[in-house]
This record gives sequence, structure tokens and C-alpha cells, in this order.
Amino acid sequence: MSPRTTAALPEFAGRHIGPGDDDVAAMLEVVGHDSLEALVDHAIPGAIRSDVPLRVDPAVSENAVVGELRGLAARNQVFTSMIGLGYYGTITPAVIQRNVLENPAWYTAYTPYQPEISQGRLEALLNFQTVVSDLTGLDTAGASLLDEGTAAAEAMTLMRRSSKVAQEAVLLVDRHVLPQTIAVMQTRANPLGLTVVVADLDGVDSADALRAAAGDRDVFGVLVQYPGADGELRDWRALAAAAHESGALVTAAADLLALTLATAPGEWGADIAVGTSQRFGVPMGFGGPHAGYMSVRSGLERSLPGRLVGVSVDTEGAPAYRLALQTREQHIRREKATSNICTAQVLLAVMASMYAVYHGPQGLAAIATRVHGHARTLVEGLRSGGVEITTQHYFDTVTVSVPGRADEIVDQAAQRGVNLWRVDADHVSISVDETTDLRHLEAVWGAFGVTGPAEVTVAEPQWPAELTRTSEYLTHPVFSSHHSETSMLRYLRRLSDRDFALDRGMIPLGSCTMKLNATTEMAAVTWPEFAHLHPFAPATQSEGIRSLIDDLSAWLCEITGYDAVSLQPNAGSQGEFAGLLAIHAYHEANGQSQRRICLIPASAHGTNAASAVMAGMKVVVVKTAPGGDIDMDDLRAKVDQHRDDLAAIMVTYPSTHGVFEDTITELCGLVHDAGGQVYVDGANLNALVGLAKPGKFGADVSHLNLHKTFCIPHGGGGPGVGPVAVRSHLAAHLPNHPLAAEAGPETGVGPISAAPYGSASILPISWAYARLMGGAGLTRATQVAILGANYIATRLREHYPVLYAGHDGIVAHECILDLRDLTKRSGVTVDDVAKRLIDYGFHAPTMSFPVAGTLMVEPTESEDRYEIDRFCDAMIAIRGEIAAVESGEVALADSMLRNAPHTAKALAGKWEYPYERSDAAFPVGVEAADKYWPPVARIDGAYGDRNLVCSCPPPEAFEG
Amino acid sequence: MSPRTTAALPEFAGRHIGPGDDDVAAMLEVVGHDSLEALVDHAIPGAIRSDVPLRVDPAVSENAVVGELRGLAARNQVFTSMIGLGYYGTITPAVIQRNVLENPAWYTAYTPYQPEISQGRLEALLNFQTVVSDLTGLDTAGASLLDEGTAAAEAMTLMRRSSKVAQEAVLLVDRHVLPQTIAVMQTRANPLGLTVVVADLDGVDSADALRAAAGDRDVFGVLVQYPGADGELRDWRALAAAAHESGALVTAAADLLALTLATAPGEWGADIAVGTSQRFGVPMGFGGPHAGYMSVRSGLERSLPGRLVGVSVDTEGAPAYRLALQTREQHIRREKATSNICTAQVLLAVMASMYAVYHGPQGLAAIATRVHGHARTLVEGLRSGGVEITTQHYFDTVTVSVPGRADEIVDQAAQRGVNLWRVDADHVSISVDETTDLRHLEAVWGAFGVTGPAEVTVAEPQWPAELTRTSEYLTHPVFSSHHSETSMLRYLRRLSDRDFALDRGMIPLGSCTMKLNATTEMAAVTWPEFAHLHPFAPATQSEGIRSLIDDLSAWLCEITGYDAVSLQPNAGSQGEFAGLLAIHAYHEANGQSQRRICLIPASAHGTNAASAVMAGMKVVVVKTAPGGDIDMDDLRAKVDQHRDDLAAIMVTYPSTHGVFEDTITELCGLVHDAGGQVYVDGANLNALVGLAKPGKFGADVSHLNLHKTFCIPHGGGGPGVGPVAVRSHLAAHLPNHPLAAEAGPETGVGPISAAPYGSASILPISWAYARLMGGAGLTRATQVAILGANYIATRLREHYPVLYAGHDGIVAHECILDLRDLTKRSGVTVDDVAKRLIDYGFHAPTMSFPVAGTLMVEPTESEDRYEIDRFCDAMIAIRGEIAAVESGEVALADSMLRNAPHTAKALAGKWEYPYERSDAAFPVGVEAADKYWPPVARIDGAYGDRNLVCSCPPPEAFEG
Repeated sequence: MSPRTTAALPEFAGRHIGPGDDDVAAMLEVVGHDSLEALVDHAIPGAIRSDVPLRVDPAVSENAVVGELRGLAARNQVFTSMIGLGYYGTITPAVIQRNVLENPAWYTAYTPYQPEISQGRLEALLNFQTVVSDLTGLDTAGASLLDEGTAAAEAMTLMRRSSKVAQEAVLLVDRHVLPQTIAVMQTRANPLGLTVVVADLDGVDSADALRAAAGDRDVFGVLVQYPGADGELRDWRALAAAAHESGALVTAAADLLALTLATAPGEWGADIAVGTSQRFGVPMGFGGPHAGYMSVRSGLERSLPGRLVGVSVDTEGAPAYRLALQTREQHIRREKATSNICTAQVLLAVMASMYAVYHGPQGLAAIATRVHGHARTLVEGLRSGGVEITTQHYFDTVTVSVPGRADEIVDQAAQRGVNLWRVDADHVSISVDETTDLRHLEAVWGAFGVTGPAEVTVAEPQWPAELTRTSEYLTHPVFSSHHSETSMLRYLRRLSDRDFALDRGMIPLGSCTMKLNATTEMAAVTWPEFAHLHPFAPATQSEGIRSLIDDLSAWLCEITGYDAVSLQPNAGSQGEFAGLLAIHAYHEANGQSQRRICLIPASAHGTNAASAVMAGMKVVVVKTAPGGDIDMDDLRAKVDQHRDDLAAIMVTYPSTHGVFEDTITELCGLVHDAGGQVYVDGANLNALVGLAKPGKFGADVSHLNLHKTFCIPHGGGGPGVGPVAVRSHLAAHLPNHPLAAEAGPETGVGPISAAPYGSASILPISWAYARLMGGAGLTRATQVAILGANYIATRLREHYPVLYAGHDGIVAHECILDLRDLTKRSGVTVDDVAKRLIDYGFHAPTMSFPVAGTLMVEPTESEDRYEIDRFCDAMIAIRGEIAAVESGEVALADSMLRNAPHTAKALAGKWEYPYERSDAAFPVGVEAADKYWPPVARIDGAYGDRNLVCSCPPPEAFEG
Repeated sequence: MSPRTTAALPEFAGRHIGPGDDDVAAMLEVVGHDSLEALVDHAIPGAIRSDVPLRVDPAVSENAVVGELRGLAARNQVFTSMIGLGYYGTITPAVIQRNVLENPAWYTAYTPYQPEISQGRLEALLNFQTVVSDLTGLDTAGASLLDEGTAAAEAMTLMRRSSKVAQEAVLLVDRHVLPQTIAVMQTRANPLGLTVVVADLDGVDSADALRAAAGDRDVFGVLVQYPGADGELRDWRALAAAAHESGALVTAAADLLALTLATAPGEWGADIAVGTSQRFGVPMGFGGPHAGYMSVRSGLERSLPGRLVGVSVDTEGAPAYRLALQTREQHIRREKATSNICTAQVLLAVMASMYAVYHGPQGLAAIATRVHGHARTLVEGLRSGGVEITTQHYFDTVTVSVPGRADEIVDQAAQRGVNLWRVDADHVSISVDETTDLRHLEAVWGAFGVTGPAEVTVAEPQWPAELTRTSEYLTHPVFSSHHSETSMLRYLRRLSDRDFALDRGMIPLGSCTMKLNATTEMAAVTWPEFAHLHPFAPATQSEGIRSLIDDLSAWLCEITGYDAVSLQPNAGSQGEFAGLLAIHAYHEANGQSQRRICLIPASAHGTNAASAVMAGMKVVVVKTAPGGDIDMDDLRAKVDQHRDDLAAIMVTYPSTHGVFEDTITELCGLVHDAGGQVYVDGANLNALVGLAKPGKFGADVSHLNLHKTFCIPHGGGGPGVGPVAVRSHLAAHLPNHPLAAEAGPETGVGPISAAPYGSASILPISWAYARLMGGAGLTRATQVAILGANYIATRLREHYPVLYAGHDGIVAHECILDLRDLTKRSGVTVDDVAKRLIDYGFHAPTMSFPVAGTLMVEPTESEDRYEIDRFCDAMIAIRGEIAAVESGEVALADSMLRNAPHTAKALAGKWEYPYERSDAAFPVGVEAADKYWPPVARIDGAYGDRNLVCSCPPPEAFEG
């Protein structure tokens, strides 16, 4: 019986939901409704309302949920993994685990779109880019991609775009590339009409040989693994030269740890490097999340997919970081986008970068040397027992020939608590890693029935000198300054202090649903039983996590009204792509492969269009009616026009305008009647849970965002999880995985992500959320989220027009404040308001999406009335500041708005503004003692794009 | 092979020790020695040097240590505890666990002696005081005591001091007081010559009856348990009236959770309340640490032992918190002190206060109501099965009569995973708590062979109306503002951001050894296997922790050269007291009970003298020679003078002046020859580990400070652990415990702390430190600590005189900067320098101890050269600022020194100082972007002492 909630609600709901009963009553009075139920009845069209309570198990207490999670954890068996294949044991330095992965200052931060309040994580990402760029020997690295498999797929399309060879040219992939990488590339290549040829590229040293290997076809790109999946470290210089001679580009999928000792891909001719940074301190976690990476040679940097952090300057001339080249991003390019990637794996990239900062170049080399030494000891032991090693030059992995005995050997190793990889009936492969010690080697020897060598002396690397790295890396001082734990701790604190995250205040981002990431939900993520599972370990060892996945899948089906779900997509964009692939495959299976038209409203998120293109569809835009709803006449016309080739419509519900459109059922009917499928983007599911189910009101498929509605933290810009949920007729076309039959339907579209269950290690977060809330709690959360948005709309409407609304002015879970007229009259832009909000201690709302010149606000159910009022008060005070500019009382250039945000440094310096320092820094509602100070003034993004710098600037840059 | 350390050192040593090999070489060059060994050979007298390496097991990696800890944890068996007796199951809210107990911003903070940079934890402690004061119904509560037992002992002496009845009057204790509390009071009473009479006070309702109960003696104080250990909630009104009539004071040892429903002690006449706040969210932890509490009625507040937080104002007139009435503290009063308590349990008090903030008054009452309801259900079930309950009115505990069957019942319960308490052969007691659920009740019923009741309806409390609480509590807004997790998270962040801890920068406190508290060392503290053990659970269930205690004891003996150690004392002061008791008992056992003189050098820490007095000794002060060493002539004279009644000498080594005195062996010989014992205070052990052993160079007993030398974090002012280590002849006189025979010698002096192993749950920290460092790492740490202090002394000597030093100007692990002459010439005080250091981003060194007008600096081995240089640079810059005052260039009142620290608020306001804002706020070495801003300006302590306010001020106080 929590004092804060009605007796029917679980106690945790009273912790998760910000406003208590009294607050809800007061807010309802402002909004003008008698009860939450009445508000919701007004807001949501009756036709789509669910009429039965959610059948999600009744909630239990936080303590009980932790107990249940411990029970699930106990059903996982953590063997020592020597499987390799892109996933390795690694030691997360405790100081990084506690102060990054378990620290809300890092994990509750949003994507750094407001760079002035994101300098800490931007610096960490710049360190990541420097690590990748230095180790791969290529000029520019991005701020992380989703995983190695998708990074390779992105490299494929990048090579295609950058190569001038003919359209029918193929991608040539060495047969020693990781099997899941090849499969992900194939899933991506199919709808784009690209051909992937897998061949043995060993010894290919001329343009002719290259062409021959490709089946006498032109080649636009070559992709090799370095070292190969078989462990062999090959010299690809001649292949690279041949590829370049043929007009093809070369991508190396490279192991970062190996690169501390082996010649960098950029040094032997690769144009692009991709891979994962997992083994830099990020646990395997049954497959993810980890930060994939990509780096490119000079000339390709403006084609890099995903995010890129760059150095620019602020208005005071100081160096300042921000996302570079943002205009390239898919939310601007829409169907002209070259990738639908719109997130990164920031939290994991931060961890990997800090691992490099903590160990430094010598430390990393020492780890790699130890790993290599263990591999040599392993090999010596096997050889001394007469076992044949087929790998000639290796770093950490060897393939062993055991004719007819692979299963037996794998079984023998498992009996000793070690997982090896069965390559085929005659071969196993064995990988050592940072966590390997002599006991593990002894276990392996035991599995082979041999005893270890007497002694092994390890000196130089075991491979040819021309593959031994001689160039320096990580020479920037940051990689040699924080090797003591004290110094590391302070560096992490200092960076996180520069940032604004949910632990400081509201982040009222429309459509991004920045709600509480409860500590209990986060607890299990770092438990060894979830953290240390290899994704390809035998299924018998992962009972606990798979049971959790089954629960979560069932609950998501119940919540959405769909029949089947795949948790594999590791970002919303990937879920979207998977959903569209399912539609495409469905039409194909029905002999309707001509259905390729995808209708998308003008207000849609840019990713929608980008994903549709990736899925081989053609985008046709549906107009917006003056009221903000979909223009139904235009829709009817377009459906008519494309009756024979209509594949789907993609809509967001409630709309990206934050409105429950009454026409949704009619829309579904129209599209279905024309033979099309309805895709409902789940971005706004937080307005529906417990109240309406897309799978029941007419949609065929949705992707969800567990990092929005289901409490996975945004992590400063990733990880995300984007499950795809479908009605039964599409279930056969969900993603599957070549190395894990149980992860999807046999008839599936192939893997979307490298790992069978995507970012499995963070699924306990969403599981715990559902378990803690139960059906009643989840429903209440939705009601309060809608109340919060309507409360803000009501309080601010007289100060800023609310752009769109439904009946009686009711909005959904977010509202759009229209500043366009104010901007016209005063010159004050949404940017000015966003930056001025920093002075007031807030993260800005979503800027200029979905309508330019507006701010979209979503409070979520987790913000209490105190914080919502503080935000409204700030917005009202800012409106007063705008009025002063409007009236001419204050010149725009001299206004607090235009000069925001104000730094402490500016306050201490010469003051040339016509307003007082205290008004600038401590406006209404800001306690001086608790003030959040932005570390830089407003950043000049364009300067940075003109002068692109994407690795750590020298310390001298910060002088003066 | 870490790149940072020599190959012989364990990798962790390179993380723990700040300076790497290059830094050490550079620092040695400045100091003028060729090697660490040469420096140490110069520093430490050859006569006391150890000549063999420490035999502490060679270190293993952090990962391996965590593995070993998991192994130890697995050897503990966590049963459901229904033992009660002052230790209850409780649920730590996850948001508090992660963001306080697992957050270095809280746990690495120092005692709030510098209040301007401690406002966060001071507010949390003020909340704690308000909770205690409100719930007990008494006017003033302190900022926590060590545990319930010692709090009761402090109440005993407080009552003795405050009662006017004759000296031979006794303390009357109800027989239902917790057994360990009675035992701790007896240990304390013996040396003071106080008599403790335990009697049944039920029904005592007149002065005559009171006297009769005391065996016809006068009574100075009465102590009762509320509810009693038997569970009975008694009405003590008549007893209290009788006591007051007799001139006695009344102390209630009260359960805070029960007080949410039961009449407050202050309302029924108690003058004092004591107890523990453990069940407010602090795990049992095998006995501690937890925050004990004491509150007193108006008129007694200036007699409160321990720390008291009060509200004062800063120079800008804003409310500001600081420790109140500091002049009462023992470090000023020395042998006139009334208590040797000089620490608190800050981290635990913060947790308990936050538990109250998070639940609020209704939430706490709801928990208490649920607990009481479970107790009633339990009783109904037992009664329905014919079991006799002897407790009439109960809150959460009942005593059950089971003639001849107690052992059997306890055994039956244990087989069901539940621990009950065997009162005697015929009775068991059963306590329910916040974690109890129906399954636990069913297990108990099963143990009794009964089935539960069909249904229980719980309405009103089960006790008489006159014991039902009607008064309000926790009415301050802070207890109703942070009930959502988001709001709680932000409150915790906001408070911690106001404070300066080791995660921001160096805390160079002499003698307090603020070194790294490594994350790996902290890991096990929150594991359930260590956190959820009841201290009186059967010994078979605590094998793991007791094995850890054995290891740690053995290592401490090896490190100190002693033969036996007790880990029971839960603060240095308690270890000191235990050590002196051992000496006292030893003399007594030898028929030398007249030996009561304790020699103490003038420079000793005040606690030394206070502890000696508590141990029944008489303090005789030994003079300091002009060079700062002990005046050996004076010592010889005093030894001669007291040859027949000399009990001991207490010295600190190296001395509190930070010097290795050459005379230590001679001193030991002199005292031993006179029949005295040598007590070496272990405060400065960080200068000795691996290099010299007190137990070998002449000392008989030492207390250690695990929170100094052995990495237990200071927690913002506690917990501490103060083991006492002795040579074999004193081993029989170490502490023991009435409820745990294995915790000490049968012939021991009784318990010093309420729990058998004191603060057992944090011992894994020190265990892990020793395990991670090994003998070689520990020794290297000592060498580098000495190097750091000498480096600072060398760099600063030309700017500030270093007061004392050994040969060649070498200091030990700390050095004293003498400002007295500068103060005379300029008026600039050590206070001014300390506050100005805040502007530079540092915690001040120790001020005016051991010599008024000086600053004592101890860098420890964990600070790297970068940070040490930053500190030296700041001190040198400040010397320049002093010079400007000295020369008359700047008036003292107008100086940055006198007006420090400078707040952001001041910077934004009208600027009336002759210096620039930027010079005030961003002096050399301070990055504007990373500036630590003190939340208040300099605090006027005297104002607060004149106007004592020790609970939360109303929000209006902060307006304007």
C-alpha cells in the first residue's frame, strides 16, 4: 500500500509514475476532466480502444522481481567461451563498469543533438573515433555502428556508392569472413538487388584473378576478415592492389585487439575497416549490445553512415564538440538517404573508449601480447600431443583438424566447462582472449587428451614480419594520462559532469519518450550470468535468458495485439527494415512481387522512407491536411493510383504530430482493400499501451522501441532495441539466424543483426519494467503520460500556439508548440529557445520535427508535477523574453535568447550584454547552488563541417 | 605486465598507486634520492626496519579477487532472519543503493569539517536528525552514533553527568533490554566505576519501587527497551515519572519503525532515546555498519556525544549547514572529554535518512502497518494451532512458550530456511520485518507443526490506545517531495553535486589517509551473501565471512607484527578503548591494578586522552621538545615519577608531526623497564606497512584504522573500522561477545561493539585491498606515500616552512606547513588558505592539528604527480596572494583569501571586490568548464552555535 497510488496499483507504479494521486487530481482540474478515464475516453477514438484490461501478469515488488531475475540468471550456465567468431571474453575494468555502465549520469543521457550540454560524451566518442582511426590506420572513424554485421553491410553499400564500376558488379567476400556477417550482408543485399559472391580470396593478387574469383564479373567491393574466422592472419596487400586496379574498394573486417600488434588495414591498402569494439571491455552479453565501428580513408569521410563527432568552436572561440555533417543524416534525406542508421551504440562506445584510455597503448599491446602468448602455448600443447593445427599464422584463434572427431572434442571440452566451436565434422576452432588463463588451456588440452607443454617461451609474434605493426597509435595524451584508478575515476566524473541527463532534470523530447530507467530494471544487466554468455553457446546453456525472451515476447504481443515478435533488431531502424522485409516477402510469397509502392505521410520520421528504400520499395508521399492529419483525399487518390503495386503504408500512431487521428481505422481499411499492408511505426506506443492495440485496430506490423516505451535507457545515444511485431500472416517472414535455428522461423528473411537475439543483455530491463508494472501499472502510465502532455498544452497554449490537436484540443502524449509566427515577428528561433532553456536547467524539446520552426514536448508519465511546472514556468518566462524582443525593447542580438547558453566563464569575464549576469545565469526557478553550467557557449556547427576534425584535438587547442 | 609498474608488482598496484615509474623517477629527482629504497632507508630508523618482505600472499588480478570473493560469498548461507534483537531484514531502495552506497561521490567524501564543500551530506544528515527527533519525539538528535549498544553506553554516561544524584547511584536497566546492549554498557561501566543493575522494571511506578528495584540504591539513570527484546510494548509513563521524581534520567532504546505507530518516547517521558536506524534500508551485514542514533530533550543538547549538524548562515546571509558545537568535541577537550566518539556512521545515516525521504511518513507507517499485520497473522496462526504466545502487546516480535522444545523448534525452522531466536530451553522469539511475506509465516507455522489461519483481518494496532501514536512526524516538505524514483534520483544527484569528494580531486588530509577506494574492493559489500547475514545467525551459516575475517586477521598480524587482532571495534576510538582495556586487564591479572597512569605526548590526537580516561586511566602529558619530537628528558622524569603506577604510554608512530622519531626504541625500553605497556596509535600506519612493524619494534598494542590504511572509504564521515592488535601477552584480554563465543577470548574484556565482528560487511574491502596488492604492492604503496609527502615538502619548503622533519629534512608520509609567522605578518589565517583552496578546486589539508596555525598535508600513494603538482601550484599561487597582503598591496578584508570561497551566485551579483571575478573563480589550474562551485560562501559557525537549529529549516528560510 504505497501512499502515492491507489490501492489497485502496484507499489512500483507509484515510483515510476511521477505524479501522485493528488498531483493527478490537480492536473486533471487544469486540463478540465474529471478522471484519467474521462480524459482518455475523450482522447482516443472509441473505435480503436481496447475493452479488456491488459493480460500482463500482475506486478510484484521490486525485491520480488530481483528475486525472479536471480532465478532466471541461475538457469543460465556460464561456460568459458573459446568460440570467438567476433565475441570474446573481456575484463570490464571495475571503475568503468561502476562509473559508466552503472551510472545514470551516463546511461540516462540522450543523443547529443544539443551539443552544448553533451560535451562529456562527445569527448568520449571522439576518443572512440581516435582509437578506431589509430588502430585501423584510416583517417576518419564514425562514432559507432550497431554491430560488426551491420557495419559490414553498411560498408557494402558505401563501396557500391563509391565505386565507379558498372551497376551489375558484385561484392566479393572472402570465405573466411564471419558467417553471421556474410548472412547480414546477404539480407541487406537482396532487396537492393546486389549480388554477394563468397569465394576463397587467398592468393588473389591480380585484377584478373579477382574477376575470376567473382565468377567473371566486375567487382565493386571486396570484403575480408583480418584475421580470418579460421584464425589466419593473411597478407592482403596484393588483393587490395588488385581490387583498386579493378575500380573496387576494399573493406577489412578487423579485430581491434589484433591491430595493436598487426599491420593496420589502412597500411596494407584497405579503404574501409569495420568491426566490433566488444572485446574492449564490453561483456559478450549473449550477443549485444556492443559498439560496431567503421573507419574510412580520406575522401570517404562524407559518406560514412551513422554519427560522426567533430570538433568545432563555440561563440567564445573555444574548441567544442558536436555531431558533424548532420545534414547527411537520414532524417533530412528521407528516401534519398543512403542508410537508415539513425542511432549509435554510444554507451558501449564510451566503455570501449575508456578501456583504451585506461590501458593506454602499452597496456593494450600487453594484453594482446598475453593473448597471443596464450594462443601459442595452446598450440604448442596441442602439437606436442600430435594434434594438427591448420592455421599457419594466428593471433588468438586456431583451427584444429580432428577428422571425424569434432563433436566428441567439443563435448569433451564442454564437460570441462569450456565451449569450443565446431567448424564442421572434422574441424574445431579455438579462440583465446583476455580472460584466458592456464587452467583454460589445460581444460582444452584435456579435451584433446593431451597434456600441455613443459614450457613455452614467447618472444616475437608468430606471424611474418611484414604483418607486424611498426606504426604508433594512441599517441594523444588522453591515452597516457588516466592509468591510475583515481585519475580514471576523476576523468569519468569530469566528463559526466559536463553533460545533462535525466538524473539532473527533464528531457522533454517529443517522440523520444525519455522516461525513468529504474535502478531495479538495470540491475541484472551487469550480472555475470547474463553478461558473459556467448551468443553461439549451446542453447542448453542459455535457458534463463531465453525464458526471459519468451516472456517478454508474449507480453509485447499482448500489449500490441500482434501474434509474433522478433527481438533481434537492435535499433528501431532495424526493426523497421525487418518489418518492411516481412511485407515484401509476404507479397512475394503470394506471387505479388510487383507490390513495391510504400505510402508515407509527409510528417513521417525520415527513417521510414530510408528503410522503405532499403527494403527495395518505392516511396510515395501522402499529403498532410491543414489540420495536421493525413490528407484522406490524397490517400484515397494514391491508393487508387497504386492499387496493383501497393505494398504498404507506413504511419505513426498517434501521429508524429502528437494526435490520435480518428481516421486510422478507415486508413487501414483503404490500404487493405487495395491489397496493401499497414505498417504502424511504434515510436509513439507510449500513448497506447493498455488503451489500444495496433495489431487489433488494423495494422499488420509495427516495430517497437524498447528504449522508448519500455525503459531501456538511451545511453547518450544508444543502445536501442527495435523489436518487430507482426500479425500471424507475416510471422513466417520474421528475421532468423544462420547459427541459431531457434531464433526465428525457418522461412525467415535472414538475420537483421549479427546476433540471434540482437541486444539480448539489455532485454532484462524491459522484462523487469513489464513485470514491475503489470497490466494495471502499464495502463496507468499511459493515462498519466497523456495527462502530462495535455497539462503542458493547457498551461502553455496561451503563450505558444499548440500546432495540432484532436477533439476539444486534446493532444496525445506530446504536443507541438508552434514558434513560427513568433520567429517571423521577433527573429527569435527555436534554436534560441532551446539554448536559452539550458540556462533554465532543461534539455530542449525536439526541435523542428516533425514541423520546422516548432518544438515538440513529451513529458512522459515519469515527470512529476513539480518538474513539469518548472518547465512550463521556464517556457512562460522565455515567452516574456521573446515579447521584449518582439516589442523592440531588446535587440535580438543583445538578448539573453540569442546569447544563450551562458557559461560560467562568460559570467566571470568582461560583461558586454545589456542584461544582468544574474538574469542570464539564474533565471526563475534556477537555484544558484544547484545550477547546471554548460561547459561551452553556443557552438558553431557550420565551422566544424567546413573544417572537419574527427579525432582528439591536441591539448594546445584548449589553451587561452 | 602493466606498462605502469615494474614487472615485479601486481597489476592492481599500478592502478592503486598514482605515480607510474616515470613519475616516481621524476619525483625522486626533486626529492634528491636515487631510489625509493634509498629514500626509505634515509627516512626510517634502521633499528626498526623490517628486514624480510611481508608474508602476505602474492597478489592476484582484480578479476581473480572478485572470483575469490564470490567463492567466499558462496560459503555463506543466507537464511530468512526472524531473529530480531536489533537487526532486521529491510529493503534498500535500489535507487538509494546505487546512487549512495555504490556512488563514489558519496562514499569517498571526507568528514564535513569543511562545511562549504559538504552541504549535500550535511543536508542528508540534517534529514537524519529530523527523522530521529520527529520519531522519538525529542527535541534534538545527533548525526548518528556507532551502533545501538554504544549509543546506550553513551546515554549511560550522559545520564550520569546530567543527574544530580549521588556518585554511588546506579544505572537501572530493564531486563528486556537487548542482551548485547547490556553487555556493551557493562564493558563501559566497569572502568568508570559505574554499577549497572539489571532488573524487571515492569510495574515500577513509584520512587520507592524504583529504589527497591535498584537494590535500595540511588539511581542516576534508567534504560528501557521500547518495545522490549521479548517483543512487549510497555507503557513506561509511570516508571519515567518515578525516575524523574528520584532525580534520575530515563533513556528509551527505541525501534524507529515501531515509533511510526507507537507513542514516542519523548511523549511518555523519556529524556533520551537511543537505537539503530538499521532497518531503514541498511542491510544487516552480519552486524554492521549501521547508524546508531541518540536524541535528547531540550536542555541536554549541549551534552550530546558525537557529531551534531546545525543550521547557520554564510557571509551572504544564506542558510548553510555545518557541524554545530564543535568546541565540545574530544579533540579540543582531550582528557576532559566526556566521550571518545569522534566519528559517526555518515554513509549509513544518509541511507537511512533517504529511506525516510523516499517513503515519507505515510509510506513508513504503511510499512510498519504491514509488518504489524504480519506479526498478527503469525500469532493468529500459532494460537489457532494451540501454541502459547507470552507477549501480550507486540509490534513485530513475540515470545513463544514451547516448554522443553525450543531447540527442536529452532531446528525445524532452520530446515525451512528460517532462523528463529532461542531465548532459553523453553522459549523462542520470532520477529517479522519489511521483507516478511506469507511464505515465511508458513515456514514458521510449519516449524511449530501448525497450519496458518484461514484469514486474518487487521484493523487497529493490537496494543492499548494510550500507546498508539497520534502525533504527526516528518511533516517537513522534504519527506513528501521525493517519492518517485526520478525525483529521488535527482535529489541524490543534486546533494552529491554540492560536495567535494575524492572523485573530484585530492583530499590531502594529514593523518586521515584519503587514498583510493577501489571499485573492486567495494564490489562485495552489496552482495546479498554478505549483506543479509544476521550477526547472531548460527555460525554454520557464516563460514565465508568468518574465513575472510580469519584471512584479514592473519594479514594484519603479519603487517603489524602483532600476535592477535580483534576486528570488533567499529571505529578507531573504539579500538583505542579496547586496547587500553586490554592493558588495564593485563595489569589487573598480574595483581598490578594500581597501574593507572597513561603517558600521552602533548601532540597526541585528542581521542587518545579521552579513551584513556574511559578506560579508567589517569592522563599525564609528556612534553614536546623544540624539534617536535617527544621530550625524552621529560619522558624519563615522568616514567621515574610513576614507576609503580605506570600503566602505559600512548604514542603515534610516525608521530602526529609526520616524523619518524629515532627515539622510539629507547622510548619502548624505558616504559617496559618501568612495567608499563606501549600503545602505538595506528593512525599513521600507512607510513610503515611493509617497512616496519610496531609489534616487533617494541609496542604491545595498536589500533588500526581500516578506513585509513586499508581502503575502507570515509563515507563522508564514517563508517570506520578500528581493529585492535596486540602481542600475545595481551591476547586473552581482547574483546569478546556474549552471543558469539567464537568472536573473542573467553577471558576477554566484554564487547566493545554491539555486533560480534563490528562492521563485518565492509571487511571485504580491506581483505580485497590486501589480496590485490600482496606484500610487494603494499610495501611499494608505503614507499610512494613517503615519496609523495617528501615531494610536496621539497616543492613547498621555499614557500612555506615545513615545521618538523627528521634527518636531512625528510618527513614521513605527511608534512606540516607552518603558517604562523605568515599569519602574524599578514593576518591571513589557515582558515583563509583552506577556503581559498576551495576556489582552486581542492579540499583543504588538516587545519591546526596537531599544531594550531598550521596545515598538515598527506598526499597518499594514490595521488598521481599531476594532482600533487596541481596542489603545489595552487599553494604557491596562494603564497603569492598572501605576499600581496603582507606587502600591503592588498587589504586583507579585500583579498581573495578572506572572501573565499567564491560562489557562482556572488559572481553573478554586484561585484564590490577590487579583484577580477575570473581571478576569484578561475585561478591557475582551474578549468572553467570543470569548475567545482561551492554552494555557499564562507559559513559563520559561531552564529549557528548561538542559535542552535538542528533539524530541517522550513523552505522559506532559503528564499531571497
